[in-house]
Amino acid sequence: MSSDLGMAERVAGPEIERLIQLLARLPGLGPRSARRAALHLIRRREELFEPLADAMQAARERVVVCGTCGNIDTVNPCTICRDERRDGSLLTVVETVADLWALERAAAMRGRYHVLGGTLSPLDGIGPKDLNLASLVGRVVAGGVKEVILAVNATVDGQTTAHYITDLLAHTGVRLTRLAHGVPVGGELDYLDEGTLAAAIRQRTAF
Amino acid sequence: MSSDLGMAERVAGPEIERLIQLLARLPGLGPRSARRAALHLIRRREELFEPLADAMQAARERVVVCGTCGNIDTVNPCTICRDERRDGSLLTVVETVADLWALERAAAMRGRYHVLGGTLSPLDGIGPKDLNLASLVGRVVAGGVKEVILAVNATVDGQTTAHYITDLLAHTGVRLTRLAHGVPVGGELDYLDEGTLAAAIRQRTAF
Repeated sequence: MSSDLGMAERVAGPEIERLIQLLARLPGLGPRSARRAALHLIRRREELFEPLADAMQAARERVVVCGTCGNIDTVNPCTICRDERRDGSLLTVVETVADLWALERAAAMRGRYHVLGGTLSPLDGIGPKDLNLASLVGRVVAGGVKEVILAVNATVDGQTTAHYITDLLAHTGVRLTRLAHGVPVGGELDYLDEGTLAAAIRQRTAF
Repeated sequence: MSSDLGMAERVAGPEIERLIQLLARLPGLGPRSARRAALHLIRRREELFEPLADAMQAARERVVVCGTCGNIDTVNPCTICRDERRDGSLLTVVETVADLWALERAAAMRGRYHVLGGTLSPLDGIGPKDLNLASLVGRVVAGGVKEVILAVNATVDGQTTAHYITDLLAHTGVRLTRLAHGVPVGGELDYLDEGTLAAAIRQRTAF
């Protein structure tokens, strides 16, 4: 693969080779699609290459991690933490900023967030100190938070992390909730796993 | 989709939103993977975001299209056109720079190239004037070229273009060849189409 990538250096110069190698490290792009992306950029110089290069400069200079919740934004505290219309008594714990954005797209969350930055994963050597847990306890202890929604992924690591947080916050008396399990909207029962179906039956609601 | 993309502007600021929108225009990335790519960049600021932003600046400043063959490089004429060890009597016509790179990876081409910049495609309104055809004739007429390999794709448009070039160069007396059809290396006969198999039988070689 590296010799394959290195080909561009021989025929197109080190700048293009380096661009391809770095593009190949983006999620969703491999060596082949990175080459295609680089050529696409070069062919569309005015419409795409120049604007994207400028956008990257602007973003690298302005992007900051929110010191309160761990979200990314161009202001600190972030737009969500500053938003006075948000319900400060409702705190949603997510694993990553991508999860925060996913919940925001649903436009159903009125509260604020806390980004853990991952999940507990002993196999990968990720322990409590590697996550934003101390600041989570701090925010809850500081008062004002009545409910913490543990919106972690429904994976083993996610659930392990949720249980750990439950223990961590037990002494604060805050209400702890989690997202409902069930049939995805538009989902077909025949394609769903038994665990999801069992949860959907147990947590059925009035029609 | 646009409102989905616009979500990042509300929660993360216009710079990040613009970065995501431009990343989404790269081939291989859609709105979702562009969001993932942007977050990946921001999380890996030192190792990836800064180097990629710098690489884009360097490439945008230095990349030029070769005035001779249409390849892209940081020098004009390009590295291949300058390379005295290349066989100047052998000219390979390709549709795109990506095809040129693909042939270079095979490391089996000793000659130089001519990049058409596409194929004739009446349905898409692409005619002879939209391709680098005049300069191809010019290079052949200028002398020194003994063989032109038409390494266009084995598609209808590619083959139409090959026939057009054959007519265009007929008066020059240059030898015109094309890539062999046949079984891909590692390919299984059972999965190949009949046209390829028929060509492989017709063009069989001594064992």
